[in-house]
Amino acid sequence: MAEPLSDTEQQAWRTFIESSWALHTHLEDELRATTGLSMNDYHVLVVLSEAPGRRLRMGELADRLVFSPSRVTYQINSMVKRGLVRKQPCPEDGRGQEAVLTEEGMSSLVEAAPMHLITVRDRFIDRLEPGELEVIARVFEKVRKA
Amino acid sequence: MAEPLSDTEQQAWRTFIESSWALHTHLEDELRATTGLSMNDYHVLVVLSEAPGRRLRMGELADRLVFSPSRVTYQINSMVKRGLVRKQPCPEDGRGQEAVLTEEGMSSLVEAAPMHLITVRDRFIDRLEPGELEVIARVFEKVRKA
Repeated sequence: MAEPLSDTEQQAWRTFIESSWALHTHLEDELRATTGLSMNDYHVLVVLSEAPGRRLRMGELADRLVFSPSRVTYQINSMVKRGLVRKQPCPEDGRGQEAVLTEEGMSSLVEAAPMHLITVRDRFIDRLEPGELEVIARVFEKVRKA
Repeated sequence: MAEPLSDTEQQAWRTFIESSWALHTHLEDELRATTGLSMNDYHVLVVLSEAPGRRLRMGELADRLVFSPSRVTYQINSMVKRGLVRKQPCPEDGRGQEAVLTEEGMSSLVEAAPMHLITVRDRFIDRLEPGELEVIARVFEKVRKA
């Protein structure tokens, strides 16, 4: 049996989980309303757009997005259906598969990015002091590795 | 047009959004697998269990969970169907409605809480220094008010 949270821990946890969930929901609702993309779609597009040749092996994509293999497969299949991404065998390893950003995927990202940036600044980045941003980066790097 | 994020801001934002999203997903997958509850279900159960008489007006519940009115209605209707909550007119104001925790809802919460606590400690709380926890509480209180 784990030790119950102290009042301070409890309050910090609740504030974090409720408020970050509300932020995710807001970002997702806004993306969907303006572009039809989900947050997962958006992050896949960003990560692929920055990769050399705009392509990544499925396993690398899963690592980058902290996704399980089955979740990344489901996500990419859904994006293939919508023409945002295509799958092809890895050139170096015929058994592996990689996801490649399509022109349509790149256009969707370019269209979505400015509005998304405004919200990210307004709801998060511009509200934080530089020292707070540093702590956020450190904490969530540890949490990512958990 | 919003100013692009600096490299530091970009990196902090990405780490936060990807890692907190993965944490939410992990918590939700685990809750669903062990109890059938979603994170939203769980938070509604917690908030109602602590309210006087285990009941809250729909509007108060929406404020507490940072939900829109339509989202809270959808969420509560889904929980009513599963017997976790019931809706009744407010005693002081016949036009308003309140959500009331049922015995079944309370049992579900009591069953889910110990496993959820272990994960919350293991994936988040126990990885943070006290000073970091303080910053998290402060930052997400500001974000909640955004």
